[in-house]
Amino acid sequence: MRGFSDEERERIRRDLLEAGRSLFPKFGLQKTTISDLTDEVGIGRSTFYRFFDSKEDLYLAVLEAEGEKVSRRLAEQNLDDVTDPEEVVTQFLHFIFEEIETNPLVRQLIISGELDRVRSHRTEAEREAERQEEIETIRAFLDPFVEQGHFYEDDPELVASAIAAIPYLTLHKDDIGTERYPNVRDVVIETFARGLVEDSE
Amino acid sequence: MRGFSDEERERIRRDLLEAGRSLFPKFGLQKTTISDLTDEVGIGRSTFYRFFDSKEDLYLAVLEAEGEKVSRRLAEQNLDDVTDPEEVVTQFLHFIFEEIETNPLVRQLIISGELDRVRSHRTEAEREAERQEEIETIRAFLDPFVEQGHFYEDDPELVASAIAAIPYLTLHKDDIGTERYPNVRDVVIETFARGLVEDSE
Repeated sequence: MRGFSDEERERIRRDLLEAGRSLFPKFGLQKTTISDLTDEVGIGRSTFYRFFDSKEDLYLAVLEAEGEKVSRRLAEQNLDDVTDPEEVVTQFLHFIFEEIETNPLVRQLIISGELDRVRSHRTEAEREAERQEEIETIRAFLDPFVEQGHFYEDDPELVASAIAAIPYLTLHKDDIGTERYPNVRDVVIETFARGLVEDSE
Repeated sequence: MRGFSDEERERIRRDLLEAGRSLFPKFGLQKTTISDLTDEVGIGRSTFYRFFDSKEDLYLAVLEAEGEKVSRRLAEQNLDDVTDPEEVVTQFLHFIFEEIETNPLVRQLIISGELDRVRSHRTEAEREAERQEEIETIRAFLDPFVEQGHFYEDDPELVASAIAAIPYLTLHKDDIGTERYPNVRDVVIETFARGLVEDSE
């Protein structure tokens, strides 16, 4: 087994992530084989395990990389520049709903029950760390408004947790009814944002 | 095959529903067999099919009967007597969340993925009829407030649909984090109700 230079390792890892990002949404986690992934990258099957412990491990890494991309796109929304607290919550929620609704990786994860399979590879501590990270992302733009007393709730952690909960409704498009869904989503987002803010008008 | 009197048919049907209500939450739809159900009732296995087309059919009937019980309990909440629009929405949502969280049948349905299996036995038209029924239940106590201009949204169908969507968050207790969940639920309910109402204070 030959060794790889740091540069080669870096490239292969990136290519595997790229292959996962392309194949997982197309075929799902279960039907995508290690060979499918290594063929795409042009390495031997056994080499895979020098980079990732398992297919699920790569899947999680793909999701993590995707999460970083979402964070970058969120940063581009310039929520820091929004001065109206109701508007900042509305814009954030619309952004997250749109991400979930249009991202093939996330859709695949949700629709096929992939989420449960991937989850069994995570401990509750890891999941809690992720939730905490999400809540902190929200608090980054929210806390100034909470501190200035713009919200009914004065616990920023609780406000952020409530905001983070709303986008789970995306997963219930079929329950809500696909025709009804877009209007329901918009009313829920606007109503919730309005209700958070003291003396909203 | 002997015939049953109307009275016997009525009793057996009721007993099968009762057996389903007791066994399905305990063992799940898949692991509960027709024989388990008929043994409980004291009839032969083949007799089952004179009452229900399938196990799933009985399951749906059990759920329907359960839905009627929930409707009766909802009626007992006397929401008609509540004069504050924010309060009526808050009380309704707390009631529904509590029902979902404490009803073993509903919990089983949700937790085990039973819902998807049962759903494959329903057409989209049947599902839409159910959604419509739920929306009408909400409109029964909501419409007077909408007509009086108490809500920001003036389309009662849309307001009711949005209210009906919120309880899907119960299914995400684990996603939200079980410790955080009760506070998040309460903040979401109160915030949403507050946001619906024009000039809430």
